[in-house]
Amino acid sequence: MILSALLTSVGINLGLCLLFFTLYSILRKQPGNITVYAPRLVAEHKINERRQFNLESLLPSPGWVRQAWQPTEAELLSLLGLDAVVFMRIFIFSMRVFSFATIVGIGILLPINYLGTQLSDDSELTDKSLDSFSISNVNDGSNWLWIHFCAAYIFSGVVCYLLYYEYSYISDKMINCLYSCKPLPHDFTVLVRGISTSLGHTVSEDVESFFTEYYSSTYLSHSVVRRTSKLQSLISDADKLYRKLAHLKSNKDTPRRFKREGLLGLFGRQVDLADHYEKKLDDLEQQVRMEQSLLAGQEVPAAFVSFKSRFGAATALHIQQRINPTEWVTEQAPEPQDIHWPFFSASFLRRWICNLAVVAACIAITILFLIPVVIVQGLTNLDQLGTWFPFLEGLLEITFVSEVITGYLPSLILQLFLSLIPPVMVVLSSVQGYVAFSQIQKSACIKVLLFTIWNIFFANVLSGSALYRVNVFLEPTKIPAVLAEAVPAQASFFIAYVVTSGWTSVSSELFRLLPLIFHFLAKVFAKKDAEEFKVPQIPYHSEIPKIIFFGVLGITYLILAPLILPFLLIYYCMGYIVYRNQLLNVYVSKYETSGKFWPIVHSSTIFSLVLMHIIAIGIFGLKSLPLASGLMVPLPVLTLLFNQYCQKRFLPLFKAYPAECLIKKDKEDQNDPTIGEFYNRLATAYEDPAMKPTNYLLSTDSCSTPLLRSAEVENLA
Amino acid sequence: MILSALLTSVGINLGLCLLFFTLYSILRKQPGNITVYAPRLVAEHKINERRQFNLESLLPSPGWVRQAWQPTEAELLSLLGLDAVVFMRIFIFSMRVFSFATIVGIGILLPINYLGTQLSDDSELTDKSLDSFSISNVNDGSNWLWIHFCAAYIFSGVVCYLLYYEYSYISDKMINCLYSCKPLPHDFTVLVRGISTSLGHTVSEDVESFFTEYYSSTYLSHSVVRRTSKLQSLISDADKLYRKLAHLKSNKDTPRRFKREGLLGLFGRQVDLADHYEKKLDDLEQQVRMEQSLLAGQEVPAAFVSFKSRFGAATALHIQQRINPTEWVTEQAPEPQDIHWPFFSASFLRRWICNLAVVAACIAITILFLIPVVIVQGLTNLDQLGTWFPFLEGLLEITFVSEVITGYLPSLILQLFLSLIPPVMVVLSSVQGYVAFSQIQKSACIKVLLFTIWNIFFANVLSGSALYRVNVFLEPTKIPAVLAEAVPAQASFFIAYVVTSGWTSVSSELFRLLPLIFHFLAKVFAKKDAEEFKVPQIPYHSEIPKIIFFGVLGITYLILAPLILPFLLIYYCMGYIVYRNQLLNVYVSKYETSGKFWPIVHSSTIFSLVLMHIIAIGIFGLKSLPLASGLMVPLPVLTLLFNQYCQKRFLPLFKAYPAECLIKKDKEDQNDPTIGEFYNRLATAYEDPAMKPTNYLLSTDSCSTPLLRSAEVENLA
Repeated sequence: MILSALLTSVGINLGLCLLFFTLYSILRKQPGNITVYAPRLVAEHKINERRQFNLESLLPSPGWVRQAWQPTEAELLSLLGLDAVVFMRIFIFSMRVFSFATIVGIGILLPINYLGTQLSDDSELTDKSLDSFSISNVNDGSNWLWIHFCAAYIFSGVVCYLLYYEYSYISDKMINCLYSCKPLPHDFTVLVRGISTSLGHTVSEDVESFFTEYYSSTYLSHSVVRRTSKLQSLISDADKLYRKLAHLKSNKDTPRRFKREGLLGLFGRQVDLADHYEKKLDDLEQQVRMEQSLLAGQEVPAAFVSFKSRFGAATALHIQQRINPTEWVTEQAPEPQDIHWPFFSASFLRRWICNLAVVAACIAITILFLIPVVIVQGLTNLDQLGTWFPFLEGLLEITFVSEVITGYLPSLILQLFLSLIPPVMVVLSSVQGYVAFSQIQKSACIKVLLFTIWNIFFANVLSGSALYRVNVFLEPTKIPAVLAEAVPAQASFFIAYVVTSGWTSVSSELFRLLPLIFHFLAKVFAKKDAEEFKVPQIPYHSEIPKIIFFGVLGITYLILAPLILPFLLIYYCMGYIVYRNQLLNVYVSKYETSGKFWPIVHSSTIFSLVLMHIIAIGIFGLKSLPLASGLMVPLPVLTLLFNQYCQKRFLPLFKAYPAECLIKKDKEDQNDPTIGEFYNRLATAYEDPAMKPTNYLLSTDSCSTPLLRSAEVENLA
Repeated sequence: MILSALLTSVGINLGLCLLFFTLYSILRKQPGNITVYAPRLVAEHKINERRQFNLESLLPSPGWVRQAWQPTEAELLSLLGLDAVVFMRIFIFSMRVFSFATIVGIGILLPINYLGTQLSDDSELTDKSLDSFSISNVNDGSNWLWIHFCAAYIFSGVVCYLLYYEYSYISDKMINCLYSCKPLPHDFTVLVRGISTSLGHTVSEDVESFFTEYYSSTYLSHSVVRRTSKLQSLISDADKLYRKLAHLKSNKDTPRRFKREGLLGLFGRQVDLADHYEKKLDDLEQQVRMEQSLLAGQEVPAAFVSFKSRFGAATALHIQQRINPTEWVTEQAPEPQDIHWPFFSASFLRRWICNLAVVAACIAITILFLIPVVIVQGLTNLDQLGTWFPFLEGLLEITFVSEVITGYLPSLILQLFLSLIPPVMVVLSSVQGYVAFSQIQKSACIKVLLFTIWNIFFANVLSGSALYRVNVFLEPTKIPAVLAEAVPAQASFFIAYVVTSGWTSVSSELFRLLPLIFHFLAKVFAKKDAEEFKVPQIPYHSEIPKIIFFGVLGITYLILAPLILPFLLIYYCMGYIVYRNQLLNVYVSKYETSGKFWPIVHSSTIFSLVLMHIIAIGIFGLKSLPLASGLMVPLPVLTLLFNQYCQKRFLPLFKAYPAECLIKKDKEDQNDPTIGEFYNRLATAYEDPAMKPTNYLLSTDSCSTPLLRSAEVENLA
């Protein structure tokens, strides 16, 4: 790729971004779009849905930037919860890292690279290959390479310092959150799985007798999990019907209330739709009640056990209960609204086998995904495409077409295929036997990240020259040399990837194109009531890997092709404002992981540092500077030791709270007059919502929205 | 190596074994040797030391075999503790494995190998190379190899079954032991390390306030650790002096009680030695008391904290105490007599750095050890030795000399160097910051095992053909092929190794040559009193790796060279009787790990199975049977999955007892009338013995042996 192609790509995307931003600033002010651009505020009744139309609202304005910028971190924390703050810390951390990297890379490394003569590219500046700005252009054995060497050491040191600072900052935030929050059911509860019942006893009886015997002083109550998938589908049907009915009753448009009984509603006796729905709802409700009474016996060998104190729950959590460690396994209970009821597989052996199957499935998906990657690679190597499809040759010779194809199309195609991955990974994670949406999301996040790094980074890097090189990972000693050869060769692809995929993803996140279109279509065709809308949840499992992956790219290419750095810095700055805006206006968080996503960011940063070091070892070897190559070896070792220390120092807190905090909170609770009331709520907090008594017909007139019980995994996906 | 050389070696070693056994059966009956051959029984006063001499005691007899055979496992358990039983289970497990292996190997595989014609060795049976009995002799592509294939699958299945059975058997034994034992201090105590004190408070005050605040209902008492290395050396001096004095006083041999004051005891005024010693002892004792009072202030930031119940201790053990997980780290307290006081390094960071340093030291030792291995390899390749030292050529041509050199000398040299390794590893492990001898021993055991497997097995296998092949481990795909070529080539060396090193180690263990010589010398020269003897502790850290390593050899060579199997079976049968005898008569165990050595045996068996599979994959590839090679691949995967399941199923119990057992025992204790007395003892159980008040002079006349306070690490080494 030459410089002018890159500039074309930057131009197109900058234009697109500006267009999106301008359109957003206009559209957000239109009263009709308020459920697309501020659903969170509508749901919280912080905004008046039916504002007056005025002319000013047709002019673009940057007011939303100011609004997104204003809230302090403390305000964000109280409004959005810890997860959102941690999510924004990823941007702050990345901005810090890449500000420093851009200064070093553009200020020092880029001029050195450009002044080298290795590639002897004598063309004009705009026709120069991007490789002229990369380390490939520095002469072999040149002493200028020692500057790259120093940059690697200094940059690693700065990143490690920032990582440590960030880890300790978030740890402090977590402890403060614990201290400041009210008693929460999940702090007092553990989930017991794999309960082995003794003959002639129900699960409930066994749990009761075990905990009253062994934890007599702290045990409070328990609720056994039941298999309710059938019941849940019935209730979801009833919910839908109820909503239709409520809509019908509130709608005074009488002609639509009648429908013929027979085929396709065209023949037969005319009936009142409302009566018809009411009858159906009544039937469903009876079915639900019957099913509920039947299910009372169908226990899953798992139960939520609540204790009188946080410390009591922590004790039961940390100590192995039974002699057989695969039975009566305790784990932290998720928040009640976070529980994923349908897939409640309980047996240890079954979960273990499911885990193995999921690992196998992930590997299969990774291998299958190589196919689109190879196609994309074909597009960046235009000559090859010409050979494959000779009829295209004429078209490809037009400069603009070839520039668009090399600069824009590959990442668009990749993007399309990549967007299919997060939902698939969510499904795989939910099969693994996690009981909470947040756990599924976290597990999916790790899977998507690994997948992205492997399939976008490594598959591109290695297939760019030759796919068969994948087996280099079976010969560890050759890795640095192979990577050092292959990684710089793909620099231009990844610079284009940041500009296209990165910038576009931020602006389309802001613009919410798909929800906007759906909203528009719904309004035009279905004439749906504006009140019926879902407040979306932020899909951490697809956003975090994306954001991290750009960081991996930046750190890896720091000394190879510093030209990538300013584009990344712009990406993170835009992302910071846009995601703040979206968190404040669009998304709600139904559950909290209390910052459990941070260790993923930490580990992947360490990974990219080590990857950078390995490539540097190879590069200095290729560039005939074996001394620098040798002196580089301690750096990955030191980085890994730093990582090990950080994990020992901070990670335990992300798994469970220490005794000190728990007991301190417990003592505070003892003086709290509302604790008795809390215990009462705790006793029923973990009952399956499907088992709660339903009574739709009584409430149809009041027209309140019933509890959302839909399978939330679908939302996530 | 040819068959006759092997037979020579077997002959020599069988002779040696018989000689040792005969000598043992005579010498053990001599009253003078009783402290060498039955120190345990003497110390327990179960045997009369001064038996009458009679003629019968000069005749060899196999009575000791019957005596060693008789006790049941329950008797062993009550006499010797769980560790000894687990140690004997290694032999039982190995005997079962190798009985089956011998039947398969000798009955089926050996004839197939022998009937092959690949090596076309037409010499006489006795001149045949041992390779004729190995898989190398089976023709390439022969369908007979499928029998080897089936043998690998069936054998792996049988071993896995036996492993599972054994793991669950030992787990049951552990639980039974817990249920049947009396309250023990270490069950009620945790060790807290890395205590960060608040300003102006001592460690003791901080520990007291922390545990009374947070564990008010279960906290009992604590004792802070103090730095007492100087004090301990003073006390050890005093102990020696006290023993001399006691000896002197009990000895009525007056001339030896006087000595001149001056140079070398030759000049100057004659003094009464007893008075002289008493004065010195008095001085020492005053020093000790002064030091004790000084040390009261020198606290190490670590403390033993005792609780009122086992469950209370387990709670404090499993939950992280402070927000910073590197401070106030809790771990299981060892038995009071098991504590290794001198190296009480307390800081988390220091221990972490020490661990890294020890890893580096182990690697250095491993590399340095290649030197003797290369020398040994020179001896097995006689031609090479002839080239190196031309003057030896005449000597080497004598058949007997060459047979002794190839069959016996190499393993003897290796043995000599290997015997230096366990003490070194003990020192390294003690630097790592373990607080108990048993932990040091276990850690040293793992180190010695890894060292043995690497330096005896891999270094021999790979240097046998070419040392540079060590870097094969950096290219994983080539490992099977390289091992398949190199491992069978060393079959004869390892057969000889089993016969020489294995058999000799068992018979010399029984005969206790070195202690016998020392005892003899002490009696002749020092005229020491027979009462002064130390009952040795069984050096698990050097014995277990040895026993396991023979198992690794056997499993690895099962399908390659089944000729090794009967020799191994003989080794394990002899070992079973001999070690039973030694455990009953010779060794005492001062502390219990309660079976914590078993997971090492399990893991190393799994390792050798996988190694066997990898070599089989290579062998079938080399033997032009790629289908068998491919079908072999699932076997190591299945074995590793089996291992993972076992670790999840059984390993937790080897780390801590479950709540169920602890609470059951606690409830039993509540009805125990002696528990109050036990609590009193518990409060002082973890005081440093060096800090206890001493009073030698008062007790000199009673002539009782003072408490042994010597640095026990030296004993271990």
